[in-house]
Amino acid sequence: MGNFKINQKDVFFILKDQLDYGFLCSLDRYKDLDEKTLDMLVTEAIAFAKGIVDPLNEIGEQEGVHFENGRVTCPGAFKKVFRQYGEDGWTAAARSPKYGGQGFPNMMRIIINDIMYGACQSFNMAPSLTHGAAHLIESFATDELKDRFVEKMYNGTWSGTMCLTEPNAGSFLANVETMAYREGDHFKIKGTKMFISWGDHDLTDNIIHLVLARIEGAPEGVRGISLFVVPKMRVNEDGSCEASNDVLCGGIEEKMGLHASPTAVLNFGSSDACIGYLCGQENMGLAHMFQMMNQARINTGVSGMSLASTAYQNALEYTRDRLQGRDLAGRKKGNVPIIDHPDVRRMLLWMKANVDGMRSMIYTAAYWSDLALELPDGEKKDRYENLVEFFTPIVKAFCSDIGFRVCETAMQCLGGYGFCRDYPIEQYLRDVKILSLYEGTNGIQSIDLMGRKMAMNDGKPFQFFREELGQFCQLHKEHPRLGDKVRALFGVSERVCEIALELKERREKDVLQWASYTYPALMSIGEVIVSWRLLDLAVIADKQQEKAKGSKKEYFEGKILQAGYYVDTVLPQTLVTMETCLRHGREVLDISNNAF
Amino acid sequence: MGNFKINQKDVFFILKDQLDYGFLCSLDRYKDLDEKTLDMLVTEAIAFAKGIVDPLNEIGEQEGVHFENGRVTCPGAFKKVFRQYGEDGWTAAARSPKYGGQGFPNMMRIIINDIMYGACQSFNMAPSLTHGAAHLIESFATDELKDRFVEKMYNGTWSGTMCLTEPNAGSFLANVETMAYREGDHFKIKGTKMFISWGDHDLTDNIIHLVLARIEGAPEGVRGISLFVVPKMRVNEDGSCEASNDVLCGGIEEKMGLHASPTAVLNFGSSDACIGYLCGQENMGLAHMFQMMNQARINTGVSGMSLASTAYQNALEYTRDRLQGRDLAGRKKGNVPIIDHPDVRRMLLWMKANVDGMRSMIYTAAYWSDLALELPDGEKKDRYENLVEFFTPIVKAFCSDIGFRVCETAMQCLGGYGFCRDYPIEQYLRDVKILSLYEGTNGIQSIDLMGRKMAMNDGKPFQFFREELGQFCQLHKEHPRLGDKVRALFGVSERVCEIALELKERREKDVLQWASYTYPALMSIGEVIVSWRLLDLAVIADKQQEKAKGSKKEYFEGKILQAGYYVDTVLPQTLVTMETCLRHGREVLDISNNAF
Repeated sequence: MGNFKINQKDVFFILKDQLDYGFLCSLDRYKDLDEKTLDMLVTEAIAFAKGIVDPLNEIGEQEGVHFENGRVTCPGAFKKVFRQYGEDGWTAAARSPKYGGQGFPNMMRIIINDIMYGACQSFNMAPSLTHGAAHLIESFATDELKDRFVEKMYNGTWSGTMCLTEPNAGSFLANVETMAYREGDHFKIKGTKMFISWGDHDLTDNIIHLVLARIEGAPEGVRGISLFVVPKMRVNEDGSCEASNDVLCGGIEEKMGLHASPTAVLNFGSSDACIGYLCGQENMGLAHMFQMMNQARINTGVSGMSLASTAYQNALEYTRDRLQGRDLAGRKKGNVPIIDHPDVRRMLLWMKANVDGMRSMIYTAAYWSDLALELPDGEKKDRYENLVEFFTPIVKAFCSDIGFRVCETAMQCLGGYGFCRDYPIEQYLRDVKILSLYEGTNGIQSIDLMGRKMAMNDGKPFQFFREELGQFCQLHKEHPRLGDKVRALFGVSERVCEIALELKERREKDVLQWASYTYPALMSIGEVIVSWRLLDLAVIADKQQEKAKGSKKEYFEGKILQAGYYVDTVLPQTLVTMETCLRHGREVLDISNNAF
Repeated sequence: MGNFKINQKDVFFILKDQLDYGFLCSLDRYKDLDEKTLDMLVTEAIAFAKGIVDPLNEIGEQEGVHFENGRVTCPGAFKKVFRQYGEDGWTAAARSPKYGGQGFPNMMRIIINDIMYGACQSFNMAPSLTHGAAHLIESFATDELKDRFVEKMYNGTWSGTMCLTEPNAGSFLANVETMAYREGDHFKIKGTKMFISWGDHDLTDNIIHLVLARIEGAPEGVRGISLFVVPKMRVNEDGSCEASNDVLCGGIEEKMGLHASPTAVLNFGSSDACIGYLCGQENMGLAHMFQMMNQARINTGVSGMSLASTAYQNALEYTRDRLQGRDLAGRKKGNVPIIDHPDVRRMLLWMKANVDGMRSMIYTAAYWSDLALELPDGEKKDRYENLVEFFTPIVKAFCSDIGFRVCETAMQCLGGYGFCRDYPIEQYLRDVKILSLYEGTNGIQSIDLMGRKMAMNDGKPFQFFREELGQFCQLHKEHPRLGDKVRALFGVSERVCEIALELKERREKDVLQWASYTYPALMSIGEVIVSWRLLDLAVIADKQQEKAKGSKKEYFEGKILQAGYYVDTVLPQTLVTMETCLRHGREVLDISNNAF
């Protein structure tokens, strides 16, 4: 049996019982779909992940990727699967049929990522980036460029990357130094990019890079950055590609994890022979790229949650099988499975609640993003657009950090075995660590949330979030079984929201003090969201458990118990953390650089 | 420059200003020593760690250890340094000169471990285990065995291990199945041990295993386990050793970290030709082994803290050098070093406080352990013995878990670079992870603390802890600058102590519910201790800063600021965590095994 395990019941409970995702099929764009088709896509994705993608995780870890003579080689198995992944429609599941997409809602692409990342993160980054890059071309480039590139990327013939980072421009993209020189209808590109995931490999004959560069004479800073389509191989009119486009791989990083995902240094135009095509408007590159970056940020959170989910499922299986120690209360004789030990159960319940809560947070945001995209212009569309803006940095940062914490806890359940390669958890723990670092560190996400997102659109992202949460609490505050937990959530969340608004004020008056507390504030808001999503699941489960029996009833009870445990043990922490964000103590700022 | 960095000023501030460790030289056993000699040992250890041990960390990670044809080979550099480490007296620094020890206080061995683990954990495990094994022989074996083995282990000729774990006996040693059959003046040993750190290698000609086994006919359970000295090679009267003693290495583990520390499966007596010698009393093996296990638990905490310390120092250096992004408040022009960004400073200050607090916690316990060992029988000796008992599981679990968290945070300071092998932090993060798992998982430590340690000796370990803490608070509650923080500590710690006593009661009535909350209780008590130690440092620093100027004054201010920050941001968390330990909600127990 493989290592990839997912609780399909939990997935559908969120999709169907909590979100009613079939409703998306009533939107104009998806009117040819029905809920059953969506369900089928989910179960097929799980089957594909189990049968095809999961084995890559171990193969990739064993074989790794190698850089020799300017070329990157990957495990052979990856090549076949990359092509199949595209051909079977997973890459472009949510894209328009015009370029070979399947026309599913955007949400389905996020669910597919959840499933595929949970099976092999290293691999799934390749089609996920390809999708993002192709979608950028589809959204902003000329028809000619679209026709040349998009379909072949969606169907797995070619892959794609996003090239932002440079040695001197990581978190701060204003420093981008890669240049674009006008030459007829195209540009000559010159510069070095680094940390480019799947930047070079041998899975496909061509790699289509989406590159941020500065057109000669463009303004300084972020307002002088443009976006370019830069293929590794030049593409002829007939779509063939034999000639090099002077994109050379300078090496790949040795990393703690993701050993099957090549992280490349790319030199564009070392021989002045690198051609690029403008994608979208001049000097609007960063704005265009944000479409992909926002998706990438969501996907980073998805990846954190789904590795956590797989790690949890593996730990769970281990604790059921491993016999060690006596029952503390003497309920059974002899060695008992360690799932019977209360401290092990504590870890399992904590993981379960976090995985379910994060998945619900992410699917909720994904559902909203479809409403934001497809609803007709108006208040509702605006509402969901703003909600997605608010959730994006939280999904990225909260789910990557808590995902890491869950993988750590999963390892703890295995004792010394957890540290060994015999079990997959140590790999998940290494792989998941990247997620707090790339696509903007989690500190940067917190500045985005507490700064830009609190302020943008007259504060609507935050205001709508508060309203949604408040409505849920109002609706269920007298719930016979869960009312006290709902009231606890309401109390904490109202205070958290008040403090968030105070912090917004503080930013104007005392930006350094404000920035010392954006990260704990983001994490606190994340905990409020998890509490909310878990209580929502619990309210639904409570209705269903009335008529259920046996293991079905136990399943619903599990949802109620995880919500109660999370709300009672985590929310008190949330409140005090958020209160500390208002401190006047300035130790973080006052300490001398020499005194660290 | 090497990767190992340590703030020597911080080390001596704890040793001299906080603990006055020179006082140990007034104890009868150490009367030939003086404080200067202790100081010299510390600075020499740092020099040895920097020059000799630190390079092993990268060599070990690159070359690794290999198992082929029943033998384990290690990097060549390790062999030379192991011998030198013994010869230069680091292994037996705290042992009696009778067998070649240097006769320093026990505390010095812990300080040496802090320094050496911080340079290369994989390597330092070898002499650390050797010391523990030899000390067991020195403490419990016959004079003949002592003469045969101890000196050669202390001086680096041979190494030693502790062999407890078996495939079916990990956390629960009552399951030990390795057998010892009487044969004349010795025993024949038969059985399999696993997870044996440095269980096989090529650093020395012989390896002396301290093995838990069951003498034929012994009672079941832990009261039928005895301790044996089992050399890998048989030792002739003249000390030479050519003949195999039928101890075969069955393989080594592939692990997430510690790649230069071989973790072996050992088969004893596969050909019925493995001779062992009883060490200490029959059936008292576990009690004897506990001397080594307690040391090993302290050392595990030390290792967690010292890797955290090195990781922090590396992150600090990076944040001073890396230019990225603009100053938020516009105080400087252009790219600024990232140490200027408040969110980076937040991480640095949090790490600094935790490293300093954990180091003080550990050195305090080490200091007490010397008083416990060397004071004449009486109230004081009894007090320190009990305090060390209380601190041991906290040092082990708290410092390993927070050590991991610090390494994670250090990586975060580097952004994407932190994930790369170019920087040493990813290795520290992988290596440090083992510490929550081995020597008894942290869950088991929490049961030891909240169960055995709360109950033993009529509750004296806890009572004395509470008194020490209370005395500090009484003494400084009106401190002009730190009084409010001291009062905050007193408020929280009194409540934490009340709850600890309530939990003690609960254990009698409701052991499963109790066991669901031992781990958060341990971590809460750890936070109280860190707060106490940091405030103690701050009170001392406040006195010294009055007369200081410039960077010296800033140094003392740093101690005050870190204490204030920790007390204000962590202790509120501590309180609510400890309060949740008294919850009546039984979700952890009530959830059905099927519902996870």
